[in-house]
Amino acid sequence: MLTLPHPSAARGPFVTFVGAGPGAAQHLTLGAYQALQAADVVLYDRLVGPEVLALIPAHVVRKDMGKEGFGAQTAQADINAALTAHASAGAHVVRLKGGDTGIFGRLDEEIAALEAAGIAYAIQPGLTAASVAAAAIGQSLTQRGRNAALRIVTGHDMAGFAAQDWRGLAGRGEVAAIYMGKKSARFIQGRLLMHGAGADTPVTLVENVSRTDQRVIACTLANFAASAEALAGPAVILLGLSPRAATQHMSQLQEAQA
Amino acid sequence: MLTLPHPSAARGPFVTFVGAGPGAAQHLTLGAYQALQAADVVLYDRLVGPEVLALIPAHVVRKDMGKEGFGAQTAQADINAALTAHASAGAHVVRLKGGDTGIFGRLDEEIAALEAAGIAYAIQPGLTAASVAAAAIGQSLTQRGRNAALRIVTGHDMAGFAAQDWRGLAGRGEVAAIYMGKKSARFIQGRLLMHGAGADTPVTLVENVSRTDQRVIACTLANFAASAEALAGPAVILLGLSPRAATQHMSQLQEAQA
Repeated sequence: MLTLPHPSAARGPFVTFVGAGPGAAQHLTLGAYQALQAADVVLYDRLVGPEVLALIPAHVVRKDMGKEGFGAQTAQADINAALTAHASAGAHVVRLKGGDTGIFGRLDEEIAALEAAGIAYAIQPGLTAASVAAAAIGQSLTQRGRNAALRIVTGHDMAGFAAQDWRGLAGRGEVAAIYMGKKSARFIQGRLLMHGAGADTPVTLVENVSRTDQRVIACTLANFAASAEALAGPAVILLGLSPRAATQHMSQLQEAQA
Repeated sequence: MLTLPHPSAARGPFVTFVGAGPGAAQHLTLGAYQALQAADVVLYDRLVGPEVLALIPAHVVRKDMGKEGFGAQTAQADINAALTAHASAGAHVVRLKGGDTGIFGRLDEEIAALEAAGIAYAIQPGLTAASVAAAAIGQSLTQRGRNAALRIVTGHDMAGFAAQDWRGLAGRGEVAAIYMGKKSARFIQGRLLMHGAGADTPVTLVENVSRTDQRVIACTLANFAASAEALAGPAVILLGLSPRAATQHMSQLQEAQA
């Protein structure tokens, strides 16, 4: 039997931040699912998958906030204003973000706006794309004797990105999940090679993680940039991992052109 | 309406690796929940929470594998043997691990055993403790202008641990989630201070993440080690983060003794 505390038990203006995971409904948590059922209004980001949006009850007001990770189709100030306006009007607002709430989601900025307005909130974390992408290729993100640390890195925030620890990332056995790194793929490649990473270091691109159009592209550091740049959908770059042979039937695996 | 592909549709020997999340049932994914419903046998680790175990149907055979992350109460070889034996006997086996399947869970070793025995498998990733612990204290694991990378590190695998990038972890604005770091807390503290981290760097300990006995202890780098060593349950050390004031009602927040 499944009993969970009910989010709608909260009184007064209230926002629940919900991590939707990378796409497939199966990766939504039970708590996130329940929060959607209890919502009056759902404000969702562009990267939230259609399978998850389909789980929002028909009577719930839904608004596309058009934001993608560190980017901003909708200005952050407008999102903050929408959050506080709906909550102050008495709605139970769900702020639905792709992936995990706390990884490249600008959660702090939205919480700060709620705090300034005196609005209470809760957070339902979600599966981040790195975990789901690694599962899709049958690999673990850590391994005894290979890497005792995992890094999750953005390729989008170029100010922070230029200051990344390239020497560390270039080390033998390092594993990193690079988010939003399509446009900066050549820069990433150049920095890693410059810092001594082997040209044959495995790199796997997972596009549209867990969606029906998921694609897995097995590459090396020497050849991944062209493949990454050519991707149409959002992708995770898994540095240091290659797909297990047994998972190749699971997804449309492609070998990158050399 | 919620429709998901049904795991029991698989034919022949089959194992589903399932990440249970850190404890609370609300953090289990829909896919993980469904895999438990479709199981014949569940082999679970010591760190899987009672709320999740309570969701396993009564007719399902359940076996405690007693394994805790990088540690091994039950020898890995015995776990591998149990997995292949149950699957080969025709059972749909769920291998239930605390947190995410791919983070400090020795997934590769178990997959290798299945591959050697010709047994098919699938993976349902789970929420890792870092995401859930950060949500509990109202913080994001990344933040524009503060950190464009997150590290997830183990404090248990001392061989790998000694080689950690301490200089990088000691940098201003770094955020890391350190798992299984209770016993090595003084070592971590010493290395970070030696590499120039500020004594006032915020550190938050989250013990028994998302369980009914969750505790949050707000510390600094100068005083966290004694608090960490005194914890009875499993804990995540969040380096670089302090609990938001508004979350202090959510959990039994304590200030560390100086």
